[in-house]
Amino acid sequence: MIHITRRERFNAAHRLFRSDFSDEQNMQIFGKCSNPNWHGHNYELFVTVKGEVNPETGFLINLKALSKLIRERVIEKIDHKNINIEVPFMQAKFASTEMLAMAIWDELADGVLALGANLHCVKLYESENNFVAYFGN
Amino acid sequence: MIHITRRERFNAAHRLFRSDFSDEQNMQIFGKCSNPNWHGHNYELFVTVKGEVNPETGFLINLKALSKLIRERVIEKIDHKNINIEVPFMQAKFASTEMLAMAIWDELADGVLALGANLHCVKLYESENNFVAYFGN
Amino acid sequence: MIHITRRERFNAAHRLFRSDFSDEQNMQIFGKCSNPNWHGHNYELFVTVKGEVNPETGFLINLKALSKLIRERVIEKIDHKNINIEVPFMQAKFASTEMLAMAIWDELADGVLALGANLHCVKLYESENNFVAYFGN
Amino acid sequence: MIHITRRERFNAAHRLFRSDFSDEQNMQIFGKCSNPNWHGHNYELFVTVKGEVNPETGFLINLKALSKLIRERVIEKIDHKNINIEVPFMQAKFASTEMLAMAIWDELADGVLALGANLHCVKLYESENNFVAYFGN
Amino acid sequence: MIHITRRERFNAAHRLFRSDFSDEQNMQIFGKCSNPNWHGHNYELFVTVKGEVNPETGFLINLKALSKLIRERVIEKIDHKNINIEVPFMQAKFASTEMLAMAIWDELADGVLALGANLHCVKLYESENNFVAYFGN
Amino acid sequence: MIHITRRERFNAAHRLFRSDFSDEQNMQIFGKCSNPNWHGHNYELFVTVKGEVNPETGFLINLKALSKLIRERVIEKIDHKNINIEVPFMQAKFASTEMLAMAIWDELADGVLALGANLHCVKLYESENNFVAYFGN
Repeated sequence: MIHITRRERFNAAHRLFRSDFSDEQNMQIFGKCSNPNWHGHNYELFVTVKGEVNPETGFLINLKALSKLIRERVIEKIDHKNINIEVPFMQAKFASTEMLAMAIWDELADGVLALGANLHCVKLYESENNFVAYFGN
Repeated sequence: MIHITRRERFNAAHRLFRSDFSDEQNMQIFGKCSNPNWHGHNYELFVTVKGEVNPETGFLINLKALSKLIRERVIEKIDHKNINIEVPFMQAKFASTEMLAMAIWDELADGVLALGANLHCVKLYESENNFVAYFGN
Repeated sequence: MIHITRRERFNAAHRLFRSDFSDEQNMQIFGKCSNPNWHGHNYELFVTVKGEVNPETGFLINLKALSKLIRERVIEKIDHKNINIEVPFMQAKFASTEMLAMAIWDELADGVLALGANLHCVKLYESENNFVAYFGN
Repeated sequence: MIHITRRERFNAAHRLFRSDFSDEQNMQIFGKCSNPNWHGHNYELFVTVKGEVNPETGFLINLKALSKLIRERVIEKIDHKNINIEVPFMQAKFASTEMLAMAIWDELADGVLALGANLHCVKLYESENNFVAYFGN
Repeated sequence: MIHITRRERFNAAHRLFRSDFSDEQNMQIFGKCSNPNWHGHNYELFVTVKGEVNPETGFLINLKALSKLIRERVIEKIDHKNINIEVPFMQAKFASTEMLAMAIWDELADGVLALGANLHCVKLYESENNFVAYFGN
Repeated sequence: MIHITRRERFNAAHRLFRSDFSDEQNMQIFGKCSNPNWHGHNYELFVTVKGEVNPETGFLINLKALSKLIRERVIEKIDHKNINIEVPFMQAKFASTEMLAMAIWDELADGVLALGANLHCVKLYESENNFVAYFGN
């Protein structure tokens, strides 16, 4: 069993708020992260997969295929986008880093399986000081 | 003569576009950076000042005072904001990293002088791959 | 279940030594890290908490509250201090990175619980080449 | 129980290929990583060991001894070398990062035991975007 | 006048040696960097251009065009290659970081002019500890 | 003309204070940096030298020789030391980063000349947020 990790990056705008709250209520609970005019981040995404090394190839997984999967299912849908408004897999979800990591897991899990490995962890950095890790349950 | 640099950070949303262009024209020229729903970045700002070391204090400048100046004049006005809409010193300016670095220079130059040093460089990272440096002329 | 991590930093002086040893004995065992005149580090502290995302807030934990907890219980007591002499939670303890990580765990565990999560890991970097991780048992 | 990690670095050349394949077949499967004239990397190696803190020393392990072990058994054999041709512990092995991490585990495990700890993880970065982790089984 | 910098990366194999020296002489002068079986690096390249901001676009230069120029003229010719053997712009040149930075300058200077800016600096990192900067004369 | 930079690191304790001031006065002016029990840092030192590439060697300077010079004249005297008390080249000097960078310049300048290059810049990071650069006049 080995773990292999691929980093990808995206830039996006977002806002923390609940649509059933007023802007004032949102600002009270979520602070400046609730600014109605949005703010944004350079997100760093680390996708870790696990499995046995294939004795034929010496690889667990073709990293180019993993990178392509992440780009097609995640990066192309979220890079230079507004997470609250435009990202299909975040529709009707709260735009926190936690929810985003879990949604990215759901986007990737079966695709990783099809590549012959298991998704182990989605780690998402919002800044150099804050990041979340989701292990799928 | 010595140079001393202070790093501060801010997160903001922006969009590259000209108001005299249609969304289609903007998208054609500025690409995904022109997304009408915004995107955003974790900006890293490096402010370099220069001058003689004060023989009384052994300092060029009190770094806490420099940090306070940058926070009051720049960070508090731009952090978690929309650069195109909400930032006073970017009013009616194009929201590129170049224009932003020059505007930050104008915000800081006289304040640095009042602290007894000269502003030397404003360096602004939009991402780990792109940054600008402005030396004031 | 999700994991969320907050980074905080502090600068401190320390020395590796046992008070029941002479300076010579300490130098023999601990090398230059035992210098009686102290040395110091920029420590980087990563505090990871875990739990369920609150369906009300979309958060596991309010990161500002976690940051405030770490600052009040750890950073304010150790930043710009001498770990061997001045830090209450290191009294009568050996000032190694291992012991420091375990002491920080004890400072934080019940406070994290009060915020509605469980402390998962205290990771402490002494330099870019050396770090420890403590999982609480 | 505590985990402690030491980082070491090495630069090496390698090539992904199977000797039972032609250069054309290798290029088809492994792409530019199969270039017969080699390419290379700055590898970063993170070795994590675990165990109980020794109440005598306040240490899990003497980090200088761990560093010396890694240097003697791994770095001196691979730094500024060709992984496919010159590295004893990679003889007859496929020169992927996965295989390399597993071979480094085998080089280190008993030496870490002799230092009074258990090897927990060998993490190997090939680039800022790709890394593997091996936990020994 | 503003400076803007684009980072690109490549991985390559090389060897420091003079063809008019024996392997023994090369090893004596260049040490392990002269290993006849090659070694390699993850190189980081920072290309800085300077000029006036275009009042029409708010840009000094289109960074995508600059990135494309660097990729076509440098990265595609050197990435995953052997610098001594395969890189056209390094033919008959000594494969040191100094010579490489100067050769990259020559590859890029007129292309940057054609984009409406002036090449200011080619900065090339061979490792986190060593880098060169070339300003064109 | 080319510039080449070597990074070295050291850990040290220090305190900002003037011996002609009381502890209270020092605390008032220099804040927590004046703590009489010391604090410390992981310093990062970047030494940049400049000159012409030697057509014989393809080098500006032998980086191993430059590293050896920095280690002998600076690192061995300051690493794991107390800057205020134990470092010969900081005797009777204020222990600020500015003064330290200038003192390091004086330690290195003639040694760099003897290696056939000119010292161009001493850059010293006290933390990821603060650094100074000294160009020798």
